[in-house]
Amino acid sequence: MNLKRYLPILQWLQDYDRGQASSDLVAALIVTVLLIPQSLAYALLAGLPAQVGLYASILPLAVYAVFGTSRTLSVGPVAVISLMTAAALAPLADVGTEQYIAAAVLLALVSGVMLVVMGIFRFGFLANFLSHPVISGFMSASAILIVASQLKHVLGIPASGHNLLELLGTLFAGLGELHGPTLMVGMGVFLFLLFARSGLKPLLLKLGVPARIAGIFARTAPIFAVVVTTYLAWQLSLGEKGVGLVGFVPSGLPALTLPDFDQALWQPVMVSALLISVVGFVESVSVGQTLAARRRQRIDPDQELIGLGTANISAGLSGGMPVTGGFSRSVVNFDAGAETPAAGAYAAIGIALATLFLTPMIAYLPKATLAATIIVAVIQLVDMPAMVRTWRYSRSDSGAMLATFLLTLAHSVEAGIIAGVLLSVVMLLYRTSRPHSAVVGRVPGTEHFRNVQRYDVELCPKVTFLRVDESLYFANARFLEERVLELVAGSPEMTDLVLVCPGVNHVDASALESLEAINERLQEAGVALHLSEVKGPVMDRLKHSDLLEELSGEVYLSTFGAWQGLIGDRSPQRMIG
Amino acid sequence: MNLKRYLPILQWLQDYDRGQASSDLVAALIVTVLLIPQSLAYALLAGLPAQVGLYASILPLAVYAVFGTSRTLSVGPVAVISLMTAAALAPLADVGTEQYIAAAVLLALVSGVMLVVMGIFRFGFLANFLSHPVISGFMSASAILIVASQLKHVLGIPASGHNLLELLGTLFAGLGELHGPTLMVGMGVFLFLLFARSGLKPLLLKLGVPARIAGIFARTAPIFAVVVTTYLAWQLSLGEKGVGLVGFVPSGLPALTLPDFDQALWQPVMVSALLISVVGFVESVSVGQTLAARRRQRIDPDQELIGLGTANISAGLSGGMPVTGGFSRSVVNFDAGAETPAAGAYAAIGIALATLFLTPMIAYLPKATLAATIIVAVIQLVDMPAMVRTWRYSRSDSGAMLATFLLTLAHSVEAGIIAGVLLSVVMLLYRTSRPHSAVVGRVPGTEHFRNVQRYDVELCPKVTFLRVDESLYFANARFLEERVLELVAGSPEMTDLVLVCPGVNHVDASALESLEAINERLQEAGVALHLSEVKGPVMDRLKHSDLLEELSGEVYLSTFGAWQGLIGDRSPQRMIG
Repeated sequence: MNLKRYLPILQWLQDYDRGQASSDLVAALIVTVLLIPQSLAYALLAGLPAQVGLYASILPLAVYAVFGTSRTLSVGPVAVISLMTAAALAPLADVGTEQYIAAAVLLALVSGVMLVVMGIFRFGFLANFLSHPVISGFMSASAILIVASQLKHVLGIPASGHNLLELLGTLFAGLGELHGPTLMVGMGVFLFLLFARSGLKPLLLKLGVPARIAGIFARTAPIFAVVVTTYLAWQLSLGEKGVGLVGFVPSGLPALTLPDFDQALWQPVMVSALLISVVGFVESVSVGQTLAARRRQRIDPDQELIGLGTANISAGLSGGMPVTGGFSRSVVNFDAGAETPAAGAYAAIGIALATLFLTPMIAYLPKATLAATIIVAVIQLVDMPAMVRTWRYSRSDSGAMLATFLLTLAHSVEAGIIAGVLLSVVMLLYRTSRPHSAVVGRVPGTEHFRNVQRYDVELCPKVTFLRVDESLYFANARFLEERVLELVAGSPEMTDLVLVCPGVNHVDASALESLEAINERLQEAGVALHLSEVKGPVMDRLKHSDLLEELSGEVYLSTFGAWQGLIGDRSPQRMIG
Repeated sequence: MNLKRYLPILQWLQDYDRGQASSDLVAALIVTVLLIPQSLAYALLAGLPAQVGLYASILPLAVYAVFGTSRTLSVGPVAVISLMTAAALAPLADVGTEQYIAAAVLLALVSGVMLVVMGIFRFGFLANFLSHPVISGFMSASAILIVASQLKHVLGIPASGHNLLELLGTLFAGLGELHGPTLMVGMGVFLFLLFARSGLKPLLLKLGVPARIAGIFARTAPIFAVVVTTYLAWQLSLGEKGVGLVGFVPSGLPALTLPDFDQALWQPVMVSALLISVVGFVESVSVGQTLAARRRQRIDPDQELIGLGTANISAGLSGGMPVTGGFSRSVVNFDAGAETPAAGAYAAIGIALATLFLTPMIAYLPKATLAATIIVAVIQLVDMPAMVRTWRYSRSDSGAMLATFLLTLAHSVEAGIIAGVLLSVVMLLYRTSRPHSAVVGRVPGTEHFRNVQRYDVELCPKVTFLRVDESLYFANARFLEERVLELVAGSPEMTDLVLVCPGVNHVDASALESLEAINERLQEAGVALHLSEVKGPVMDRLKHSDLLEELSGEVYLSTFGAWQGLIGDRSPQRMIG
């Protein structure tokens, strides 16, 4: 039972049949065709040699098939993680050096170990720190950064930088060096892929191709661009005309090696590795859940940490780069009919074969083709409508989103995401530090109690009923003290205060101390404190404290019970709110 | 009106009468007598010359009387803030140097500016980050550190260090150098003060002294110890016998000066100044609230930030050290009958007179006397019962408390408090990331719905009712998705899911996106999503989103309405939970 939890492959392998195998094989073939250009492109984006992208698409896929819980997730290099990899490596080594590649491999390994540790200790909840608006702002800004970083390959202009200002600055400065042949290849591929995304599927449907096939065809269009431009580059000797080509790619499978355990490298990658782990995990889990839900399947987020972690460790051990579950590739895998993670393992074999036999051709592949592929893939991540929706819905969420977006663009991916997380937490505390609360009175003739400011209710000047609509914990413990003391200071006649608690789901130690302090202070001021409608779990907890003994008043099951007990034959005042 | 908010002095000065003035003068006299040894002692604790403590008890008291909202709070140097000052200054300069004093003055100024800025922007809620268990663990550990740091003065042994291990290590190493005369003075004062704390008041009461006077007498006992030991030191030439004396203290009032605006000093004190500000604010506000509540008065925490901030700025401008509202001195002020902040201003005059005329005598004051005063004052801060209570009440709160306590002792005050804050926030997210939720069914024959696992209720296999007892926000948005998808995956017959929302006080943008995703995924799986009992404020918010339009099901006012609408004439199953 426990073994099956940690080795999800055992859940499906024993019932694996020929029908599933043939579905998985077909899906794997299609995914392989998509993965080859994607792997090359994201290695380019991360500033790494093309083969590193291929290596990251072999062993990690096979390992995820053993440890992952999603049936259809396809792991490998993805755009945002590749961008984060480039940003993390920039201060450590120069692009193109041995150290740069070594640091990328180390980054994959460290982030893999972090994910596995988080999985073992069931720390998946840490991903909750990344709120949707922060992720959305981060993704949009990353996509813009990626487009800006790839424009140089499409335009044939040298440019560099790790934030938008630097990138655009160097691009504009180099605009005079625009390289015609490169631009033609880049723009050609770009326009073709744009057409493939929006116009190819409807065209194929019109020609009578079944919808699923047409969809897969449209999504794997990059391979046609790769094949055609590679052929053109070879035939027309585009490399000699100054068009940037991928160049020599060593053929053969990666060797298994342990990365360099140099502490001078380990320490600086820790924060980057953590951010890459968490962002990759969040992206992967949301893709996995979306797909699993369509077939009423489930994924286990804590085990997903182990699946992704082992995938990254294996990437680190086989010369790859950080990987995670990608959206477009997983959708292709799903639509192509993959039924089990075996499809991923088969795709790994496909990429391995490509690494063995196709590398001589890849040498002629123009970088502009890959850059155009990346640009078309990521522009859909820029989600301006989400920004507008969030702005309409909540100003504070929108603030966190905008801060993340702007800081990611203007400073760095890491600063953006850290600022977003901090802002979310600060705003959460701010919001819950002043929860909704209301003095309530009795709706005449009933047992119901309502806000005195909204309803025409009965009140008694000596007994005040205060309802708090939030769990009581450290963020609002002080608020509660202030609210109660304000009430008491404003009502010299008051002799009893009833805290009405149906909305209180939890009382932590800070709030408990505040309640004790309130009880004591009210007692000094000659006011008795009562509680009503305390929920079962909260009451169980309070029995482990001294509050119930020390309470100057009573605990009433219902607010009406408190009314009867405290007001009894005194004549209440009617008030119009 | 607004002027009165920012200048609370205007609220009481116009009605100030002779009765209040004479009460305030009496209180000020008593507080001055207490403040002289306290100010000297806390300067010693912070590693500063004695006069710095006196300076910090002149202008800040007068300024707080103008800007503060508590009628009876007495500001000045306090134990924990002095310890934090010592810890902050240690890496910046050597004790006894000009730079050390300059850094202390700068620390007061920077922390004052921070407090004022927080007050203007109403950032008082930031103090909520410090939960009660964290403060309690921090206070206990600080008190132990303070005792350990003062033992050297009582024992006459040279010792140093900024955590318990270092301090105890150097103390044990120097145990052979124990200095007899110093020990006699120190232990004598220590035992006298212990007796004064526990036995003097009962003794005076027995002798017929009124309770209030007896209490004040017991609390101001330190001044007797100071007078007696100073006299003895002078008469017996204890200084020549090796007993450490305070030594030359310049007489005269402090000069108003601007601290050194050297960036090399400013930057390293920023974090320390922030921590000192927040800890000082929390301590001061809780003292102020306790006292205000006894007389049914109120304090305004945001204005308190400005009051404490201006007090610290004035400390920085007049050669003082960081100050805050202290517990013991405020209680003395309160018990002595202070009615308005004018009492503080009068006490400032008292200290100013002492600075002008008493400094020649202070030169003969043994340091052992001050150290014993500090030790007796802080041992009551070590609150082991609170640790036990918190452990009984909540393991997770207890964890934050213990982490703060141990790190403060073993590493540093700053590491302790930062770790405590981080742990509190992480545990808050952890707890709310898995809120209580329950599938509910109808109590037969009623309109009530209860947890199927606790009650004998009616269910319908096609319609599931899920109640969530927590506000929905980023920490639990993912949980909700998982919970719902798990339910759907486990109930192949389900056609409708009703989210029962009476416990949902807020839905943030992350949770909104999760609800939209849930709606979409359920739709793909052929299940309609409905909502019931959505609270008014939440509904108002949702109207600014697309959720209500896109919702595959309905929004029902009551859960029973949803039951009638969805189940109608289908026959529900009865189940025993």
